[in-house]
Amino acid sequence: MRNRLLVDRRNHHLFQPLLYQVATAALSSTEIAQPTRSIMRGARNVTVRLDKAVGVDLPGRRLLLADGGALHYDILVIATGVDYNYFGHADWARHAPSLKSVADAIEIRRRLLLAFEEAEKTDDPARRRQLLTFVLVGGGPTGVEMAGSIAELARFALRRDFRHIDPASAHVILLEAGPKLLSGFADRLSAYALRALRRMNVDVRLSTPVDAIDADGVSTGDHRIEAALVIWCAGVRGSSPASWLGVPMTTHGTVPVAPDLSVIGHPEVFVAGDLAHVLKQNGRPLPQIATVAKQQGAYVARVIAARAAGTTPPGPFAFRNPGSLAIIGRSSAVADFGWLRLTGFVAWLVWALAHIFFLIGFRNRSEVFLEWAWEWFTYKRGARLIVDASRSTDERSADESPRQ
Amino acid sequence: MRNRLLVDRRNHHLFQPLLYQVATAALSSTEIAQPTRSIMRGARNVTVRLDKAVGVDLPGRRLLLADGGALHYDILVIATGVDYNYFGHADWARHAPSLKSVADAIEIRRRLLLAFEEAEKTDDPARRRQLLTFVLVGGGPTGVEMAGSIAELARFALRRDFRHIDPASAHVILLEAGPKLLSGFADRLSAYALRALRRMNVDVRLSTPVDAIDADGVSTGDHRIEAALVIWCAGVRGSSPASWLGVPMTTHGTVPVAPDLSVIGHPEVFVAGDLAHVLKQNGRPLPQIATVAKQQGAYVARVIAARAAGTTPPGPFAFRNPGSLAIIGRSSAVADFGWLRLTGFVAWLVWALAHIFFLIGFRNRSEVFLEWAWEWFTYKRGARLIVDASRSTDERSADESPRQ
Repeated sequence: MRNRLLVDRRNHHLFQPLLYQVATAALSSTEIAQPTRSIMRGARNVTVRLDKAVGVDLPGRRLLLADGGALHYDILVIATGVDYNYFGHADWARHAPSLKSVADAIEIRRRLLLAFEEAEKTDDPARRRQLLTFVLVGGGPTGVEMAGSIAELARFALRRDFRHIDPASAHVILLEAGPKLLSGFADRLSAYALRALRRMNVDVRLSTPVDAIDADGVSTGDHRIEAALVIWCAGVRGSSPASWLGVPMTTHGTVPVAPDLSVIGHPEVFVAGDLAHVLKQNGRPLPQIATVAKQQGAYVARVIAARAAGTTPPGPFAFRNPGSLAIIGRSSAVADFGWLRLTGFVAWLVWALAHIFFLIGFRNRSEVFLEWAWEWFTYKRGARLIVDASRSTDERSADESPRQ
Repeated sequence: MRNRLLVDRRNHHLFQPLLYQVATAALSSTEIAQPTRSIMRGARNVTVRLDKAVGVDLPGRRLLLADGGALHYDILVIATGVDYNYFGHADWARHAPSLKSVADAIEIRRRLLLAFEEAEKTDDPARRRQLLTFVLVGGGPTGVEMAGSIAELARFALRRDFRHIDPASAHVILLEAGPKLLSGFADRLSAYALRALRRMNVDVRLSTPVDAIDADGVSTGDHRIEAALVIWCAGVRGSSPASWLGVPMTTHGTVPVAPDLSVIGHPEVFVAGDLAHVLKQNGRPLPQIATVAKQQGAYVARVIAARAAGTTPPGPFAFRNPGSLAIIGRSSAVADFGWLRLTGFVAWLVWALAHIFFLIGFRNRSEVFLEWAWEWFTYKRGARLIVDASRSTDERSADESPRQ
């Protein structure tokens, strides 16, 4: 009963809010990922298990594993979050990667840096223009952050490294289907983000839904953009465990839960984080952000502890909003605390301090701080590494080409 | 004529002497790799080109590229080094990866960390023992360094992270075909390395050539070792450009060169570094190490500059040996300067300072220094990340399993 098991198919906890910095060569992946085992080192009653779950046997109270095994549970907490949603266009995923894992970030970094390398080599002006065109689909925090970061990579970090191209001529395009950027933020802050990105030469196109994505670019209405790299930063949908629970899902693939975050009809199963669908008092769902997820994790722990101790459980989950933050670029961000709205350098400072504070592990914090300080003062990027993940050791040793 | 072109199929210069630390989760890959473009930023007459060479047209003086193109040269310098040599057993490469690239190191790290994860899960004692058995083939510097580093990872960094296994029970086996470790070093230093590794519980077996390697372990004579991970640290052979030059190669696949490092019969082509076969005065070839390669690079530059200026070229290449270093573990190394031979902590300090000094780029130096200082005092490892390189973005988005 007192046995805690943490099952994860990855060996690390990833600080997702900074994943875009790995994709744009500013941070190394090890700086924002910490082994789950290390985090749980002091919790001697927690066993970490690297395994892939593939289903739940609700009547038998068993978590089913990919290797055919199963784990018995008395209480199950599902916190598997969301995946990117290509809105039924599964083929778009091949051409427009999204950013959810370390491997995603390394692959996007590879494609991004490779585009500049190819542009340096080609003599065809049209092809060069295509290679230096980067399209971000979706004007939420990730799209805004990526657009700003790519624009700065091109303008500053790569500035003097090429001989035949001017990296600053890169065309960064941010497409947003809705009428404003950062739809969860106040209008004034969205307008600031728009101005700030345009000052950085990002070509922001609002009310511009995407109709098609292929290997050579995107189509929006009757407009065509030839681009070497399209990155998907648009909608998300609940990850597949939502479908294991036998309860009706929302249209976004998330799981409607009781006020104590348990699954309706299954008080022994909880859903916490982005995958849970909780209504606010005004009838709107809570935003799918890290601050909500962290509070829900702590809340579910209190509910379980109260049940085990036989004491009064806490009241319904209530989200206390500490504020929203989004970064646009060097010294430029927006912060929305409801009672206080900040833009520019002050918001950027708040953003940087908050993100360093919430990074897990003292060492990662100091490392990221130093990396940022170095990059801020030098305009350089520290992690410009192209690693071809698709080439395994076997292929390479069979490969007779030179190790140049 | 004055146009310098640097062709490399990777975008980064890799500091190979520290690659084993990426494989054993001590350093992040970005800490020991620097974009070639950044290194060449100040050399405005150098153009860096990311391309894969596949041959040389000697009469036409053209370097042939994988994409079908070719680059004209007046002078060609080949410095593609060596690859691991499986001595005709191409199938061993699949089971026993070697360590030459960033992708290699990340793959070895993945297999290494995964073995502990699998051992934590299994209930079968024989399988657990196999999973916790790590075999290094080859007792040169890489084998010695890897053996020490894996032993310390198991004894210190992972010590309190598991619940069902004791990582310190890991069985690290170092197999060397010859009668001593570190064959290039003085006997006294080799003997020290042997004692130091055995004190760290590394099972060193000398005069033990490997007869077979398969997915489940290795065979040496009539002895069988069941192991989850076998790492190949044995011989090397020249990389394939050696075969492009139409001159007889050595049995090790390297290129015999004239005293000025040019290819015999082709004064316009130079070979520098591990791929060049240069005889010392005593008739033995120079060792294939970084210090030789760096001096040869500088020497070839002087030869070319003298030719361009029409001045007297320098005399034959002569290697000035600054000494050899090999690390065994925490506070334990050997240093051989000929006139001075060091072991233990003092040698370790020399090793650490030399390696930090020769790392390219101020930032990497300070980063690696801080990382080492942190790891030395805390016994932790900072880069314990399992990234599955074989799963591309497309596969993952088509994958309906949970993002746990």
